[in-house]
Amino acid sequence: MTYTLVLVRHGESDWNAKNLFTGWVDVDLTEKGRAEAVRSGQQLKEAGILPDIVHTSVQRRAITTANLSLDAADRHWIPVKRSWRLNERHYGALQGKNKKEILEQFGEEQFMQWRRSYDVPPPPIDADDEYAQTGDPRYAGLGDAMPSTECLKDVVARMVPYWETEIKQDLADGLTVMVAAHGNSLRALVKTLDEISDEDIAGLNIPTGMPLVYELDESFAPVARGGRYLDPEAAKAAAEAVAKQGR
Amino acid sequence: MTYTLVLVRHGESDWNAKNLFTGWVDVDLTEKGRAEAVRSGQQLKEAGILPDIVHTSVQRRAITTANLSLDAADRHWIPVKRSWRLNERHYGALQGKNKKEILEQFGEEQFMQWRRSYDVPPPPIDADDEYAQTGDPRYAGLGDAMPSTECLKDVVARMVPYWETEIKQDLADGLTVMVAAHGNSLRALVKTLDEISDEDIAGLNIPTGMPLVYELDESFAPVARGGRYLDPEAAKAAAEAVAKQGR
Repeated sequence: MTYTLVLVRHGESDWNAKNLFTGWVDVDLTEKGRAEAVRSGQQLKEAGILPDIVHTSVQRRAITTANLSLDAADRHWIPVKRSWRLNERHYGALQGKNKKEILEQFGEEQFMQWRRSYDVPPPPIDADDEYAQTGDPRYAGLGDAMPSTECLKDVVARMVPYWETEIKQDLADGLTVMVAAHGNSLRALVKTLDEISDEDIAGLNIPTGMPLVYELDESFAPVARGGRYLDPEAAKAAAEAVAKQGR
Repeated sequence: MTYTLVLVRHGESDWNAKNLFTGWVDVDLTEKGRAEAVRSGQQLKEAGILPDIVHTSVQRRAITTANLSLDAADRHWIPVKRSWRLNERHYGALQGKNKKEILEQFGEEQFMQWRRSYDVPPPPIDADDEYAQTGDPRYAGLGDAMPSTECLKDVVARMVPYWETEIKQDLADGLTVMVAAHGNSLRALVKTLDEISDEDIAGLNIPTGMPLVYELDESFAPVARGGRYLDPEAAKAAAEAVAKQGR
């Protein structure tokens, strides 16, 4: 008896295409991103891996990815749960800024620290910044938990309680669980599943629009570390492309 | 203090466009149907009526309507609940048949009885009919509750328990509730809300893609009988067109 967990990172968004830091800004998918979501669902259907329940962030690009992917897999009718705890990392004052310009302005070392260090967040966003989302009704209940910037360590801290309660419970109920989320919330989840060190997680890149399937034993440990992609060669090529972003 | 309930009937489906009886067959929306869903969401946004939670059937055309409508209203992130109790009426052996051909074959009286009588269902669908959905996983838990045909009275009987428990509870919690469903499950709900007689419900037609908003008092009785459409003139014209279907 194993549990099945399917991770899907949303496909290309408007700001991926424009090479902007996005974080909590609620941008939409591009047409390419929509096609990636549909392909994810087709891959699941072909593999016979059929989610019984889906968890998403509260951000449009993950929600639409889940909608399109499940529709393509004929699983549009399953229950849905959403949480801000699955959101992308909050990119602080970098939100809305061009990655290439930030790289040129601050240099390689600072740029990579913001992008890949485990515990150094970017500068916090100002409350009156156009991308600060002050007063967004979906975050009204967060109070002091509302971030103004996050490093990956912060994402782990707010994601793990959701994994420990909501997602594990659904797995324990025997459900095949799909999580449709973001580069960094999924890195936080994979770090937890595979017990990856704070140092080594910097090197992990999850490609977009490619279901990553984990079989977990009864203590929720992966049967195979790293899980498996339904299309491993395409996943490897895509992960390498993510690592080069911003160059 | 009033409660706000928003009803949205899905827009044009592939089989509406082909003039086929659909029922529980899980057809998709047409492009026109998708545009209707988006317009519904835009109307809600313009009116400032913002759902806090959505209830859908387990059928693709209502689910996609909810997805597109909520996305257009910037409410894509709200919680979602689904139930087969909000499904369209099961059309029995008529599912997949052309409305005009059924009208010609069986005559006006029988045709209208199947379409609009309160308590006479069409003949049941055979278990080996291509549209019987035997073994569909979304209905695996229904057991004997799985219908082989339904009249509107049957829809009322299976919809009302969901209204009484799930939907009323969300309203009582102070949430603006959206229900994205079907011609007959929404007629069943409106019959219950407005206490319409078994005879008079035959004359009620709910147009597609137009939010119908009910304000309810603390005993869940409508403040204004019949609710209100956000675009009343368009709704009236559309309801008249529905009444003429199959002619």
